[in-house]
Amino acid sequence: MKNLSDLGEFGLINLLTKSFKPNKEIPVSVGDDCAILKYRRNEYLLWTTDLLFSGVHFKKDASPYEIGWKAMAISISDIAAMAGIPKYGLVFVGLPPKTTVSYSQEIYRGISELAGKYRVKIVGGDTNAFEKLVIGTTVLGVVEKKYLTLRSGAQPGNLICVSGLLGKGKKTHLSFLPKVQQARRIKRLFSATAMIDISDGLLSDFTRIAEKSKVGGKIFLSQIPCVSGIRPEEALTSGEEFELLFTVKPKYGKAVYEAGFFVMGKVTSRSSGVKTFNASGHLYKPGRPGYNHFF
Amino acid sequence: MKNLSDLGEFGLINLLTKSFKPNKEIPVSVGDDCAILKYRRNEYLLWTTDLLFSGVHFKKDASPYEIGWKAMAISISDIAAMAGIPKYGLVFVGLPPKTTVSYSQEIYRGISELAGKYRVKIVGGDTNAFEKLVIGTTVLGVVEKKYLTLRSGAQPGNLICVSGLLGKGKKTHLSFLPKVQQARRIKRLFSATAMIDISDGLLSDFTRIAEKSKVGGKIFLSQIPCVSGIRPEEALTSGEEFELLFTVKPKYGKAVYEAGFFVMGKVTSRSSGVKTFNASGHLYKPGRPGYNHFF
Repeated sequence: MKNLSDLGEFGLINLLTKSFKPNKEIPVSVGDDCAILKYRRNEYLLWTTDLLFSGVHFKKDASPYEIGWKAMAISISDIAAMAGIPKYGLVFVGLPPKTTVSYSQEIYRGISELAGKYRVKIVGGDTNAFEKLVIGTTVLGVVEKKYLTLRSGAQPGNLICVSGLLGKGKKTHLSFLPKVQQARRIKRLFSATAMIDISDGLLSDFTRIAEKSKVGGKIFLSQIPCVSGIRPEEALTSGEEFELLFTVKPKYGKAVYEAGFFVMGKVTSRSSGVKTFNASGHLYKPGRPGYNHFF
Repeated sequence: MKNLSDLGEFGLINLLTKSFKPNKEIPVSVGDDCAILKYRRNEYLLWTTDLLFSGVHFKKDASPYEIGWKAMAISISDIAAMAGIPKYGLVFVGLPPKTTVSYSQEIYRGISELAGKYRVKIVGGDTNAFEKLVIGTTVLGVVEKKYLTLRSGAQPGNLICVSGLLGKGKKTHLSFLPKVQQARRIKRLFSATAMIDISDGLLSDFTRIAEKSKVGGKIFLSQIPCVSGIRPEEALTSGEEFELLFTVKPKYGKAVYEAGFFVMGKVTSRSSGVKTFNASGHLYKPGRPGYNHFF
């Protein structure tokens, strides 16, 4: 019998969400960074939830402050990925009974400080005992209809771009700042056609855009912007970067560079698939397609 | 050093939420069943999140269908407790890697079927590997401003009422139906002054109303409606009942009975505290104040 390890995370999400269909109140299918709900005449509500687990999203050496920070940052990053503005948050924490009060206060301090930086109001929270530390967050945001940026809008000929250097996830995943203002700027300046935040790795997350947009893509290793000491091959599958991966019409290529962002490839037709090329123009096959929590 | 077991759950929630203050966009303080957000001229948004843990909220003998059902039911019950109408849900599931696909499908079938009964649209979901089964749910609902029912509105002289028989939680906590329509009826017929759903036990949850309303209360054991085989003393602290505990002005006492609900006591002044009396009029002191996940 199939179990989750066979299926992989992508397959499972498809399986679990295939019965959840869009309708007139929900203009966009599930499977984007946030759910989208009708709100005001010119705005949608964006809504996301994340669950962080001890041993999966943070290890024993993470401080409680960092854990709280990351929990809120991941949900805010989901709002950013659709070019929205985060507004409100709820937090649910499962704590081992032996947790000290100061440890749990530090978790909430991390949550509050990150939320405060983005003017996100924490409007409720609850806590419960559990064997392992678990944090659930949910964030509501708003986005003007003209700003909304989906995974599904990439078109053949578009450029594949990224908001910053890759390969730093391991160092920054507990302290990163979600790119809310950058996403707004990317939409305003370049009318980005599709966007996602890089959580599972460039290649995995571009594949999500490709699937939703029904396109393919060429990624050029030589053009992937990497932090010092990281090879492009590593940056291709480095998870928890939380940079914005986006596509723009080719006429914006120069403007993307001038604004301090990077172009790494080109959207192609669906039949071409998603491919990576090395500096000498040969096809590069990564050892693994990206970060997969089930592997 | 204090740890969570010393502090108890009530103390911890107070500790963690004391920095989260209401403001003009959030008309009500945290610590009610749901967060309340501005929405339309005559309506508020209600927003709640819950996290269910294997071994805490369900045991090994619970079926995956029941687990999914309960996860969604608890959040819908939070919306009911404020006399709102649940509308949308998001679900996040942490699954042990060896979980079979059919087991996870059964969890989602439980979620979907319960949501479907209440016309709640599941607009997104995600899943991740974890050692233990964990389900996070978040539900958005709406409530007309005139229907909104808080924990804080009980007044001395009000009657303490309940929507159904108590003492069944252990048998029904995996299959209960949240009392959305009953809550609407209670508000419409009796202009309920305060309401909560009984999750931790009648006495614990009435104490929450008492704290928020700055009142006391007398609960009469002889008037607690119990299921067959359960003594009122047990019903007083029986958790996960998910009946509605509410207060009404005394003139509605007869109407409450005629509508099939029950009166069990009276709201008193804050200085009197929350007290329970037995059939001979003597003070009854329960062994434990109610269900506490940390004890």
